[in-house]
Amino acid sequence: MDITETPRWASGKLVDLPPDECTRLLAERSVGRVAWTGPAGPTVLPINYVLVDDEIWFRTTAHSSFATEVDDQPVAFQIDDVDEFTRSGWSVLARGTAHVVFDTTRLPRTWSGPETWPSGAHALYVVIEPRLVTGKRLFAS
Amino acid sequence: MDITETPRWASGKLVDLPPDECTRLLAERSVGRVAWTGPAGPTVLPINYVLVDDEIWFRTTAHSSFATEVDDQPVAFQIDDVDEFTRSGWSVLARGTAHVVFDTTRLPRTWSGPETWPSGAHALYVVIEPRLVTGKRLFAS
Repeated sequence: MDITETPRWASGKLVDLPPDECTRLLAERSVGRVAWTGPAGPTVLPINYVLVDDEIWFRTTAHSSFATEVDDQPVAFQIDDVDEFTRSGWSVLARGTAHVVFDTTRLPRTWSGPETWPSGAHALYVVIEPRLVTGKRLFAS
Repeated sequence: MDITETPRWASGKLVDLPPDECTRLLAERSVGRVAWTGPAGPTVLPINYVLVDDEIWFRTTAHSSFATEVDDQPVAFQIDDVDEFTRSGWSVLARGTAHVVFDTTRLPRTWSGPETWPSGAHALYVVIEPRLVTGKRLFAS
């Protein structure tokens, strides 16, 4: 914990990632973080997701604060990879509006996995339509 | 990308982390994510930090959107660790108010590293005083 290490993410060694690389990274990962501001203030929640046709899909339970707070609200979705040893990494941020999808006929037909949907009343689908996707890479010094 | 994998973070295998474990995890790490809502909507930014007396300290540049948007505003600070192989992990979320610290005499005296402050006019210190720290652990199924 050397304070001289702290400004690295703002030290000028950051470069923007091109949009296609941001999309590729979003497609490769399966866990990201969704951030939104509800009555309790800003919140960040890790969540499993899939990218389908440039939209970010995930599931939640019907009674979660997340489900009740994000519908039609602006959200951010973020993934990153940080290497503490080389002090390098990257981060991708997708900003847009979240929508709770109650009508399962609206689910994308192009899920890449077998459609063995778990049963139960708690299955709620949420999609983020990214309005802006940006990314940064921090090179090792 | 099997959709049957997506509900794991909401599948009931999550347990709350006790507050002292949240603090221990915050103290061990050096990179986290700060989230806030500015004019462009919710944003998540990875950042280097140190935990000093239960406060989260980091630096930024004076002209960043972050510096201009978070002062005296509610923010969330999040760290996590996800093991994609065992599909387990944990996440700690600290919520509170961020303050830009212009008066360097207010910086904590207990930095654990050598105080070799980098020179330059871009050094801006930000502290988050957590109002609420919570955490979850997801056990491997």
